[in-house]
Amino acid sequence: MEEQSIRVEERQDKKEKPKSEDLIFGRNFTDHMFVMDYTEGLGWHNPSIIPYQNLSISPASMIFHYGQSVFEGLKAFRTENGDVQLFRPEKNVQRLNQSNDRLVIPPIDENLALEAIKQLVAMDSDWVPSTEGTSLYIRPFIISTEPYLGVAPSHYYKFIIIMSPVGSYYKEGINPVKIAVENQYVRAVKGGTGEAKTGGNYASSLKAQELCEKEGYSQVLWLDGVEKKYIEEVGSMNVFFKINGEVVTPALNGSILPGITRDSVIQLLKHWDIPLVERRVSIKELYEAHQNGTLEEAFGSGTAAVISPIGELYWEGHHLVINEGKTGDISKKVYDTITGIQYGKMEDPFDWTVKVEKNSKVRQ
Amino acid sequence: MEEQSIRVEERQDKKEKPKSEDLIFGRNFTDHMFVMDYTEGLGWHNPSIIPYQNLSISPASMIFHYGQSVFEGLKAFRTENGDVQLFRPEKNVQRLNQSNDRLVIPPIDENLALEAIKQLVAMDSDWVPSTEGTSLYIRPFIISTEPYLGVAPSHYYKFIIIMSPVGSYYKEGINPVKIAVENQYVRAVKGGTGEAKTGGNYASSLKAQELCEKEGYSQVLWLDGVEKKYIEEVGSMNVFFKINGEVVTPALNGSILPGITRDSVIQLLKHWDIPLVERRVSIKELYEAHQNGTLEEAFGSGTAAVISPIGELYWEGHHLVINEGKTGDISKKVYDTITGIQYGKMEDPFDWTVKVEKNSKVRQ
Ligand SMILES: Cc1ncc(COP(=O)(O)O)c(C=O)c1O
Ligand SMILES: Cc1ncc(COP(=O)(O)O)c(C=O)c1O
Repeated sequence: MEEQSIRVEERQDKKEKPKSEDLIFGRNFTDHMFVMDYTEGLGWHNPSIIPYQNLSISPASMIFHYGQSVFEGLKAFRTENGDVQLFRPEKNVQRLNQSNDRLVIPPIDENLALEAIKQLVAMDSDWVPSTEGTSLYIRPFIISTEPYLGVAPSHYYKFIIIMSPVGSYYKEGINPVKIAVENQYVRAVKGGTGEAKTGGNYASSLKAQELCEKEGYSQVLWLDGVEKKYIEEVGSMNVFFKINGEVVTPALNGSILPGITRDSVIQLLKHWDIPLVERRVSIKELYEAHQNGTLEEAFGSGTAAVISPIGELYWEGHHLVINEGKTGDISKKVYDTITGIQYGKMEDPFDWTVKVEKNSKVRQ
Repeated sequence: MEEQSIRVEERQDKKEKPKSEDLIFGRNFTDHMFVMDYTEGLGWHNPSIIPYQNLSISPASMIFHYGQSVFEGLKAFRTENGDVQLFRPEKNVQRLNQSNDRLVIPPIDENLALEAIKQLVAMDSDWVPSTEGTSLYIRPFIISTEPYLGVAPSHYYKFIIIMSPVGSYYKEGINPVKIAVENQYVRAVKGGTGEAKTGGNYASSLKAQELCEKEGYSQVLWLDGVEKKYIEEVGSMNVFFKINGEVVTPALNGSILPGITRDSVIQLLKHWDIPLVERRVSIKELYEAHQNGTLEEAFGSGTAAVISPIGELYWEGHHLVINEGKTGDISKKVYDTITGIQYGKMEDPFDWTVKVEKNSKVRQ
């Protein structure tokens, strides 16, 4: 495929940027967005960076009715010397295409998508905040736009990238959370869409999430949809447990999202020679390990928080307090290393970061 | 709740209507649409009938990312004397609220929603076609519109109703279809969103649907997501089997949509003293019944086709031809009765139809 060049339409009236301390996740958006259209027969075409603006879209658009959509989430970080860099963006672009395949959405050109992310970040690089722990959240997504009420794959799509500056996840230092095991509702099941990043998975999670928050827990720990015995993942995070000196994480089984942070954690642990195994983990095993004192640590992994230590697990009347409710050594070491690499404070032995050249490739 | 009155803004430049023979499902839309907004704190407000038009909506709107949405589908029919009537619309409005509950969307006022449907149909009643078998398809739906990237229930929604004139489903008379049992992909699972009418269920079905069409089948017969043994439903239809003189349909188990046509079929069969039971039905039972000659009839039920006889079931290499591939007696009788009632050709002993008064309640 010949590489398409990205048309750029620059905004004249730049928006006012929120102050670093006022940054709330996902509420403010930068000056520009990327848009590319798909039309059956023509393929993906007209990649453009344009001023951030509303979409004008038919009420019959399939996205409003049959949920055919996929998305991604990644971040750009400002390093101490002022550079801007991305963390493993090629992984997000690959995963977007894996999600596309499950949702019957035509694949995108991964190089073009990467280039679009880089150019858009370069164009709005003033929006990448520089206070400790802040970053620019990047949201690529694809929606089905054909105005048609039949249940069928759409013949038209829009691939869009929007960006939002975000504050520090841990304003008062990395902090353990309380998580509740969900016994009634199910997020995903083998043969379903659990391993794809598609809206329906999140829509179906809202009910359980709402109920768990009412009980004072911050997120839900999902069990498998078939036997309701095996650990899947937490809200928007994959999950790790240290049991008797060994780190265990649920194996990718078709209903779990293959997290990029998860993969980074696994690579780091292997690099450090810390025992790590991907396998099925039952809630009963965790309960028993807790009872006999071998459940030593638990943490979630995801782009938003990087690492979220789990201080307490609630399951059927049992409050399992883990590591006295404090952040464990491995959680801390992994968190410090990944964020160290992301902000350019530590060496990057895996070549995970990708520099964004300010306006380098922007053609006008 | 005090009933809100519906504001009406009439279109001046009426669109050209497609000819009866050119009607394709879900492609043409009438002159007007209904829109009502929800804002946290204010509730549902500003119910309005306005000219059919595009929505101007933020690319950060939650519907594009987390799929929080619900919809309904019902029809208006033109009777022989020119009246327009709806079929059990109160059931659709009730089910919309059941779906809302699962998707954490604030409930709508069912009376107001019914009134909105009636007024909109009255306003665009010229769009209800009159050729045999044609109708006006009505699509109420709710989408989450808050521009926010956090995974949480939205604080803003839009309830919209659009309408599309549709041609006859069976141009050459009611006709059996071939259906393939799906063994790999799963539509829904207990604890998931299967019993709600929400986009994600349909998005997840596209892949299996595409594969089955490639093999020459018109729709997929879904098995349960847990054991992959029990019959759930067909594409956009519930399903019935006549085994050894008794009609059997899968019981509502939490992962099947409670179809309104399904309920109508059940009421009719009971009315006629035809043995009917709602219970679990395994694919193995159907296979064995076919082998010993007691699988006498099979049909799907749904708003689009009313009744869709199943002439062949494909399962793991077996082609189960049912009733010699012909429409069965019960399928035919149920089809004739429901459509007879819908088009006002037969008596309506259950009070299923609701007349729409032309412009009766339209306030301008
Ligand atoms: C359901 C789910 N699981 C896991 C993750 C973690 O994935 P990643 O590490 O790629 O952010 C996310 C968030 O992206 C998610 O939405
Ligand atoms: C998944 C599913 N099952 C069953 C049905 C049949 O329901 P109804 O008879 O209310 O149209 C539909 C269509 O509405 C559907 O989408």
